[in-house]
Amino acid sequence: MRMLMIGDIVGQIGQQTLKTYLSELKQTYLPDLIVVNGENAATNGRGITQDIYREFRELGVDCVTMGNHTWGQSEIFDFIDNEDRLIRPANYPEGTPGKGYTTLSTSKGKFVIINLMGRTYSSIALDCPFRTVDGILKRLSGNPFILVDMHAETTSEKQALAWYLDGRVSAVIGTHTHVQTADERILPKGTGYLTDIGMVGPYNSVIGMEVEAVIRRFVTQLPVRFEVSKEGFVLQGVLMDFDPATRRAKKMKRIRIDNDTPWLN
Amino acid sequence: MRMLMIGDIVGQIGQQTLKTYLSELKQTYLPDLIVVNGENAATNGRGITQDIYREFRELGVDCVTMGNHTWGQSEIFDFIDNEDRLIRPANYPEGTPGKGYTTLSTSKGKFVIINLMGRTYSSIALDCPFRTVDGILKRLSGNPFILVDMHAETTSEKQALAWYLDGRVSAVIGTHTHVQTADERILPKGTGYLTDIGMVGPYNSVIGMEVEAVIRRFVTQLPVRFEVSKEGFVLQGVLMDFDPATRRAKKMKRIRIDNDTPWLN
Amino acid sequence: MRMLMIGDIVGQIGQQTLKTYLSELKQTYLPDLIVVNGENAATNGRGITQDIYREFRELGVDCVTMGNHTWGQSEIFDFIDNEDRLIRPANYPEGTPGKGYTTLSTSKGKFVIINLMGRTYSSIALDCPFRTVDGILKRLSGNPFILVDMHAETTSEKQALAWYLDGRVSAVIGTHTHVQTADERILPKGTGYLTDIGMVGPYNSVIGMEVEAVIRRFVTQLPVRFEVSKEGFVLQGVLMDFDPATRRAKKMKRIRIDNDTPWLN
Amino acid sequence: MRMLMIGDIVGQIGQQTLKTYLSELKQTYLPDLIVVNGENAATNGRGITQDIYREFRELGVDCVTMGNHTWGQSEIFDFIDNEDRLIRPANYPEGTPGKGYTTLSTSKGKFVIINLMGRTYSSIALDCPFRTVDGILKRLSGNPFILVDMHAETTSEKQALAWYLDGRVSAVIGTHTHVQTADERILPKGTGYLTDIGMVGPYNSVIGMEVEAVIRRFVTQLPVRFEVSKEGFVLQGVLMDFDPATRRAKKMKRIRIDNDTPWLN
Ligand SMILES: [Fe+2]
Ligand SMILES: [Fe+2]
Ligand SMILES: [Fe+2]
Ligand SMILES: [Fe+2]
Ligand SMILES: [Fe+2]
Ligand SMILES: [Fe+2]
Ligand SMILES: [Fe+2]
Ligand SMILES: [Fe+2]
Repeated sequence: MRMLMIGDIVGQIGQQTLKTYLSELKQTYLPDLIVVNGENAATNGRGITQDIYREFRELGVDCVTMGNHTWGQSEIFDFIDNEDRLIRPANYPEGTPGKGYTTLSTSKGKFVIINLMGRTYSSIALDCPFRTVDGILKRLSGNPFILVDMHAETTSEKQALAWYLDGRVSAVIGTHTHVQTADERILPKGTGYLTDIGMVGPYNSVIGMEVEAVIRRFVTQLPVRFEVSKEGFVLQGVLMDFDPATRRAKKMKRIRIDNDTPWLN
Repeated sequence: MRMLMIGDIVGQIGQQTLKTYLSELKQTYLPDLIVVNGENAATNGRGITQDIYREFRELGVDCVTMGNHTWGQSEIFDFIDNEDRLIRPANYPEGTPGKGYTTLSTSKGKFVIINLMGRTYSSIALDCPFRTVDGILKRLSGNPFILVDMHAETTSEKQALAWYLDGRVSAVIGTHTHVQTADERILPKGTGYLTDIGMVGPYNSVIGMEVEAVIRRFVTQLPVRFEVSKEGFVLQGVLMDFDPATRRAKKMKRIRIDNDTPWLN
Repeated sequence: MRMLMIGDIVGQIGQQTLKTYLSELKQTYLPDLIVVNGENAATNGRGITQDIYREFRELGVDCVTMGNHTWGQSEIFDFIDNEDRLIRPANYPEGTPGKGYTTLSTSKGKFVIINLMGRTYSSIALDCPFRTVDGILKRLSGNPFILVDMHAETTSEKQALAWYLDGRVSAVIGTHTHVQTADERILPKGTGYLTDIGMVGPYNSVIGMEVEAVIRRFVTQLPVRFEVSKEGFVLQGVLMDFDPATRRAKKMKRIRIDNDTPWLN
Repeated sequence: MRMLMIGDIVGQIGQQTLKTYLSELKQTYLPDLIVVNGENAATNGRGITQDIYREFRELGVDCVTMGNHTWGQSEIFDFIDNEDRLIRPANYPEGTPGKGYTTLSTSKGKFVIINLMGRTYSSIALDCPFRTVDGILKRLSGNPFILVDMHAETTSEKQALAWYLDGRVSAVIGTHTHVQTADERILPKGTGYLTDIGMVGPYNSVIGMEVEAVIRRFVTQLPVRFEVSKEGFVLQGVLMDFDPATRRAKKMKRIRIDNDTPWLN
């Protein structure tokens, strides 16, 4: 079972870059499953629209995960409950629109994708992600492959969750910081881990946003509106092979494509 | 001019791992200058002692930078003002013990190292790192090489500072998260950049600390004392070549050595 | 039914001030029930010991509530499960030592006291206080009087909880800021409310701590150890009358006794 | 010298309530100077417009202070530099539009008003308020009366600043929490102090905002837009007498007018 997961898609450049490279990635790596984080896919970098979600699906994306920007486009409340393959952090309180995990049938077996959000430094007060994932795992049956998208700010909360789940899920992949980390590893009991997968969007930017506006906000501390940058492109993701028998990780390969690192280094 | 910078040294395993690999790294790469971040070098992972600092110097480290844990060992107040090659974040308020930057003479020319700390999500309220570094740069003369250690939590503040300094310093390297990022690049005007350099310490850990204790704190939200983990080893750093004429970055190579990735992959 | 509630007791001066004034307060106001917040009662202002708890009980205190400093004295883990009238925030995760509410039998009827903690700006990630209190209320029977001690930083979270519970509990009284607010009121459906009850401790202090040390920490941003101040005294609390039929609030009177406002203004 | 200071004016009910009661307050108390905090005066509770500012001035307000919502109405950038009696926190970085303090001439002598903002839990990273006020005080001459509006979240930062300035200014009055505190006092060296002055706005609200929306945000953690409540009214402020010789505080009287506490209790 080979999975391709791709980091937070940011704005129109993110959509376009995904479109440009996904077919090449598919031809080269032949993934059985493609997951992207779509919390920043809308034009302004906040949330996702139904059109964008559908386009991702047409490109061959099997599941879209979200994060703190889940509700950035208000139309999401109209379609999130109808889309099976769009998930938001599972540790939102009970009754929240949408769902926190989904089960896909693939030719290689059942594949569960769980979305969680960290709490450290979050302005949103969510339920405990550790207990939430315990509850979900208890409800699962049939020994599926399991990917956890842990959307969180700090490296410590992501690492702690990965160790907590080591041997119980196939992979824990972090999202949210928009910078890929270089610490891919398979933990002692077989769970694949990467602190952050990175993003897909403009390369010359501050985590996707126009450089100048972000600097101005840091320097002046005044309200400055951020727009998604239009300069350059970057695509970051990770390719993982899972053992069909144990459902654990066998191999991980980070992917980085950008103006300085053109396909395929 | 070749610089080797190595991430936050954590506890005794961090010290030991540095000792084990530094001579090999020196023989292989022949750096002109070695910088380490030492804010977690003490046995308990908080601060640095004079003995440890001196041992780092004897191993060939030219400069030790710090961060939010600068004052973790109270003896630092006794020696920080006497040590030329130990610097703490420059944006501590005026009158703070120690200094925020230092100038080294090397065979290849003057080399300035500046330590800054980010403010986002910091429980310490420091001066503006952007204005602070502007002030330091204004006081420098003679076109030195300049390295900025930006000790900060968020990717956005680190990237913003790097863009802000692009073309004005040789490199901006982030520290603090203890996880190396995979985004090394040379910005358009020549400044080398890496969001986080990573750490040197126990590989089986949560950012250096014992896994079980960190999980317990996240799960129970009770006070749990953290100790530095004793399991495994990891060393993360970056090698940079700077152009002697322009003082800008020419080449960057990340280094990762650990139980899964033994020397030299 | 008349209740006297008294704010966070801080250190030895807090203990002593309570002892000095409680008998006068009892004689003057003849409360049927006395509740104090004891999260800062220990000598160093963090947590409570069993001896202090027992002394409070001997003085006539019927119930002691806690807050973010619940675990400040490690001996609490030895006795919290044995003490019926010592409660800690109910929205700690399931399995936390101690209990989050208690039911007292008084001559005027059953009296339930619930302790909750707010989440805004809290470094502890707790369960939702709104859902937690809903769950507790559902389990109660027999139309008791109900007091909620809402231990929280922000005025907005305290007010929101009070409005949320209006008509469902007898009173919501805030604790934690150590400064009494002047906004006592009975909400439209009968719940008595005060944003913060204040503290019992040294008057010349910063929320109980030595002034000079706190200023030094704000000004230097260095680690400074805080001790409970030894200067002056203050006792802040609130007296409430509840209607025995409706169990709702009829009357509230704030109490303030200190060096500038000696008994009884 | 008698000063009337009135808390954060919130929205149209805040404006209306000020209009309704200010003439009565003036007739009853004959203040020499009237200061209001106007950071929430706009219809949506964020910032102030030029029209509102002018109306306040016509009502007899001598100075308007601001806070974290200073820039809530973008038109402020057009007029803040032209208005002598509108001040924003002085510890915004150098170069920020507007000014952080102002000097008024009154029949009883010069009166300086300084606006500061606290840093604890602030999402805005400002300069040190302690050093900023030191710098301002150094620049003042002629022994004026001095009022400091300390706009801050925590009681500790407000108290620490007040003790820091005790004997150096006439008064430190806190703003921002929208709940009046009951701790008015004159510190040992003569500075009058109140942790928070409260607000002017709708009484049935969560710090001015519609109750239901705020509860919904706390309970769902979803984005919920807040509007200023339309129910009830409250006016909170403080009256202070300063000694013309020493410029220090002689007397403080809190003012609370609302649906439950009609004029004049
Ligand atoms: Fe995110
Ligand atoms: Fe994102
Ligand atoms: Fe560190
Ligand atoms: Fe650090
Ligand atoms: Fe307290
Ligand atoms: Fe507290
Ligand atoms: Fe306000
Ligand atoms: Fe405010």
